Amino acid sequence: MTSFRAVRLAQRPTGVPNSDTWAIESEELPALAPGEFSVRVEYISLDPAMRGWLDDRPSYLPPVEIGAIMRAGSVGTVTESLNPRFPVGAQVVGTFGATEIAISDGSGVNVVSSDLAPLSYFLGALGMTGMTAYFGFFELGKPRAGDVVVVSAAAGAVGSVVGQIAKLNGCTVIGIAGGKEKCDYVTNTLGFDYCIDYKQDTSMRKLLGGALKEVGAQGVDIYFDNVGGEILNANLAYLSFGARVVICGAISQYNATEITPGPSNYMNLLVKRGTMTGFLVFDYASQFSVAQRRMGKWISQGKITAPETIVEGSIEEFPATLNRLFAGENLGKLVLKVS
Amino acid sequence: MTSFRAVRLAQRPTGVPNSDTWAIESEELPALAPGEFSVRVEYISLDPAMRGWLDDRPSYLPPVEIGAIMRAGSVGTVTESLNPRFPVGAQVVGTFGATEIAISDGSGVNVVSSDLAPLSYFLGALGMTGMTAYFGFFELGKPRAGDVVVVSAAAGAVGSVVGQIAKLNGCTVIGIAGGKEKCDYVTNTLGFDYCIDYKQDTSMRKLLGGALKEVGAQGVDIYFDNVGGEILNANLAYLSFGARVVICGAISQYNATEITPGPSNYMNLLVKRGTMTGFLVFDYASQFSVAQRRMGKWISQGKITAPETIVEGSIEEFPATLNRLFAGENLGKLVLKVS
Repeated sequence: MTSFRAVRLAQRPTGVPNSDTWAIESEELPALAPGEFSVRVEYISLDPAMRGWLDDRPSYLPPVEIGAIMRAGSVGTVTESLNPRFPVGAQVVGTFGATEIAISDGSGVNVVSSDLAPLSYFLGALGMTGMTAYFGFFELGKPRAGDVVVVSAAAGAVGSVVGQIAKLNGCTVIGIAGGKEKCDYVTNTLGFDYCIDYKQDTSMRKLLGGALKEVGAQGVDIYFDNVGGEILNANLAYLSFGARVVICGAISQYNATEITPGPSNYMNLLVKRGTMTGFLVFDYASQFSVAQRRMGKWISQGKITAPETIVEGSIEEFPATLNRLFAGENLGKLVLKVS
Repeated sequence: MTSFRAVRLAQRPTGVPNSDTWAIESEELPALAPGEFSVRVEYISLDPAMRGWLDDRPSYLPPVEIGAIMRAGSVGTVTESLNPRFPVGAQVVGTFGATEIAISDGSGVNVVSSDLAPLSYFLGALGMTGMTAYFGFFELGKPRAGDVVVVSAAAGAVGSVVGQIAKLNGCTVIGIAGGKEKCDYVTNTLGFDYCIDYKQDTSMRKLLGGALKEVGAQGVDIYFDNVGGEILNANLAYLSFGARVVICGAISQYNATEITPGPSNYMNLLVKRGTMTGFLVFDYASQFSVAQRRMGKWISQGKITAPETIVEGSIEEFPATLNRLFAGENLGKLVLKVS
């Protein structure tokens, strides 16, 4: 028998997950059934959305059950197989979970190749993260050259890609990130026109007003929201006519233990005839292959930088790595490389 | 010289307008300049949006200036004219203001006829109110037969029309109104499928859940919002996939003296891939004539009832009549008939 370790949900967290949330133990791999194969997981994706999956309430996916292996996107190599579509040695991406070894029947699994891009990219810019940026920006943002685009969590996995795609498409781009280091990265490396450091001791509304003046803009045409809270509210105050607010996430609220107030400036949607729309990347699955080809080209041509923070360590590092997201400590896509 | 009385803004109100807000005095009508004509005002429209025009902050229209005649839609008869397009005796609708007599150069003024419909209808179902209902519902609500439509302020000027149009178009319609009398009116006279009395001592969320069960529905496809606050928030909790939230108004907030919390359930837009969009009826001005013809046909065929509350009195009644809106005392379109 092969033994492996996996991160299981021990207890639902209140607020930020802690050591009581998880149980990491050694287990024995069962024998494969016909059609199944086993995968040695090499990279595990860490995503803000994971926090929502831990709560026991209806959402776009069922909650992770107590005792179950934590849901996670991951990439790895097939080590044993009773499925001819996924032979031993194939590199695969799928929702294998926070585990060292997974057994799969192939549903939702795709074969990838490290010849095309580093394997971790299939969790980031070429994976769900990149697809989220791509479809949220094009389908809901409806950009036109010259639009003023504001992106929160601009140094994060999705935001960093959104802003770069916006620049490629002729938009003026303002990022919002925490701290000078991230802001420098956003303007110098990613090429945004301006970056607001939200950790300054000034109201978000003032900071955004100042940023718009800096880039010579009157208002926000597209606001791509990854954070919610005061940053969303400030953007609503500065909508231009017909503005599009794209609701991608709300990381500022995911660990809230009380109901967080909604954006009080939403009535500006009326004054400015604006739209605020939510989306989930899975809805665009039928178009992923086209988007991946385009994104792959931009990356290989050096037109898009796909920043990553790769934490190397054992599966035991999963809980602490996840919490780095909520502390805002990562630059770009956060990935655990399982050693 | 002709003398007349007009309602002028004396002081910007905090909260609900009161006697300090207005000054009503007798004035002398100046002589007409070439191209001008004078109108004896017969009906004055009372609208929730008026509250917003009293605040000194940028919005879709400039605020009413201190000392100026209160902005208001009205209908009347031309009494003197130096403009051949608007001869003496013509019945006209325009933004003549809260006054007994107005002078106009004809901009934004249309000739109407009491042969087609009672004059007050040109402020209600055939005027801005009806147009707001029509374009908000069709353009932003994007209805399809079978959709579940929820309308707040269902016994009000806009809501009563929205719900009836929705029924005509094959939708299931739930109204929300205050008190048993209004709710009976909404279901019995207007023909909505169900009406929630929000004045009950139960959370809005529970009331809406119960109403959906009553009509055999899973969720809300279109929510037409005239009120904001808790009612908007409850509807956001019950969105169906791809739901459309139409932001038409927020009467629960217009007199607020502190910042009111936004709808904390807005993140359900993401889970349900919903859209929340604001609009202003003026944006559809080029299509008004088509909509008015359609609405007129529905009314003359008896397919739509256009409820009105007509207060008869002098111009002195304007302030108290306006406040009836905020107290929720009117059924349908509220109009002051100036005697």
